[in-house]
Amino acid sequence: MEQHYLTKRAALVNEALGFHAPELKHPPVIFEAMRYSLMAGGKRLRPIMLMAAADAVGADGTAFLPVACGLEMIHTYSLIHDDLPAMDNDDYRRGRLTNHKVFGEAMAILAGDGLLTLAFETMLRQEGVDPAVLLEVVQKIAQCAGPEGMVGGQVIDLQSENTQIAPELLVDMHERKTGALFRAAIWCGGKLGGATESQLADLERYAALFGLAFQITDDILDVTGTTEEIGKPAGSDEKNNKSTYVSIHTLPGAMRLAEQTVAGAEACLVSFGDKAEPLRALVRKLISRKN
Amino acid sequence: MEQHYLTKRAALVNEALGFHAPELKHPPVIFEAMRYSLMAGGKRLRPIMLMAAADAVGADGTAFLPVACGLEMIHTYSLIHDDLPAMDNDDYRRGRLTNHKVFGEAMAILAGDGLLTLAFETMLRQEGVDPAVLLEVVQKIAQCAGPEGMVGGQVIDLQSENTQIAPELLVDMHERKTGALFRAAIWCGGKLGGATESQLADLERYAALFGLAFQITDDILDVTGTTEEIGKPAGSDEKNNKSTYVSIHTLPGAMRLAEQTVAGAEACLVSFGDKAEPLRALVRKLISRKN
Repeated sequence: MEQHYLTKRAALVNEALGFHAPELKHPPVIFEAMRYSLMAGGKRLRPIMLMAAADAVGADGTAFLPVACGLEMIHTYSLIHDDLPAMDNDDYRRGRLTNHKVFGEAMAILAGDGLLTLAFETMLRQEGVDPAVLLEVVQKIAQCAGPEGMVGGQVIDLQSENTQIAPELLVDMHERKTGALFRAAIWCGGKLGGATESQLADLERYAALFGLAFQITDDILDVTGTTEEIGKPAGSDEKNNKSTYVSIHTLPGAMRLAEQTVAGAEACLVSFGDKAEPLRALVRKLISRKN
Repeated sequence: MEQHYLTKRAALVNEALGFHAPELKHPPVIFEAMRYSLMAGGKRLRPIMLMAAADAVGADGTAFLPVACGLEMIHTYSLIHDDLPAMDNDDYRRGRLTNHKVFGEAMAILAGDGLLTLAFETMLRQEGVDPAVLLEVVQKIAQCAGPEGMVGGQVIDLQSENTQIAPELLVDMHERKTGALFRAAIWCGGKLGGATESQLADLERYAALFGLAFQITDDILDVTGTTEEIGKPAGSDEKNNKSTYVSIHTLPGAMRLAEQTVAGAEACLVSFGDKAEPLRALVRKLISRKN
């Protein structure tokens, strides 16, 4: 059932993304460049999280596809810009050439800018939601994606290149760079679905632990995964002398910590009963993921 | 009076920008980089246009400073990214070093991303407006700034480098690259101020002619202005063999066309009476501008 749910939701997201970022608009090349990265077949984790959080509070998550798609566009723009020569200078992403390798650096910058802007246009097109709630939701996403959130995390990452950074700063960086969008997805799904304040508080605790478990398993995969599986050079953290959960806690320690964090995240969902099954599936899947 | 009005409004915008993009947030360097370009003292044309359009329909334009500031942030992010080595590779902007020359290329990309995202956060914070109207307004701005608008114009510009492009495509490029944000400013000011459909139609015609007059005078300045005045190398259009209103119509012809276009823009404002004085001042000022 779990697998079926996630696969079905990912297919819905893919279809909606294709609709909101169509092929034939003018000028075609910018839409081609945007779609090259957007339709490259990610896990669609953030949109699925948003829908699963709405499900958890008794709504139908699929009613919020435009907002969910906006999150994926924001995630994708950040990957395109992160890969640029001036940033991480990566040639491959998910086994395919990065955006600037195919379309050139200038077009990749503009494809990122275009996706970020289109994300807001798409989210604001969401129908069937009280306008005041939609404003609050999109504002939350902007805050989590901006200089105090994801962009700020990228800045910290940039500043800590080739330096040993303090563990607190490392946690801060991950909480912003990847955690902020996870938190936005969960909070917004709950809010759109009509969550009570107490439900939102439970969801926020879940989202924080999800982000932590995601990062721990990311660090584990860098050690245990193959370059092919993880889509980037395996062992790069150790090579770059990076502080990770594995370097701090050892591999078995990090694995135990990941399991405890996942259990903690599941524990936040008790009051939601069966409706939170998709959220449980999502966090449990982190432990067994290969990429 | 005109001068006084514009100066006062620009001061209000500067103050509000300082508030919405403060100095001390974490990480400080991204806010420093964003503010370096944002507070570099532009004319604040787009925010002032938005407020003047709201004035024209009988509202108090200063009530909409958050949305107005969002437009300036979007304009500023586009300048930072346009100046990047991969794009126009400019070292100076308004007589100061460009963002990437001071903060490096990676930080300049992130400063642009940060400003674009902060623009949406700031606009969505606008209070005292019917939420449904605010959603429509911010969506309009996203559409005008995105791949079908400003970003699309930049793509056309990029593709037409070192090629003689058709005059229609040149007009299309300018309408998107600079015109789209002008149109957004005027339309949103009218909408926020409570314009009727017929008033919005008049304002849209004004905005289109404003954009045209702006571009004609830009082409004229490239010929008549000094490098110091216009803040970029004078005569660069001719050097780059670009089609411009001057190359097509000759200098006196372009000047006449500019005057006619300004008169046409003023003619759209008849029904607004004295309340449209600021909008008239703005478009008349184009003819006498030096930068």
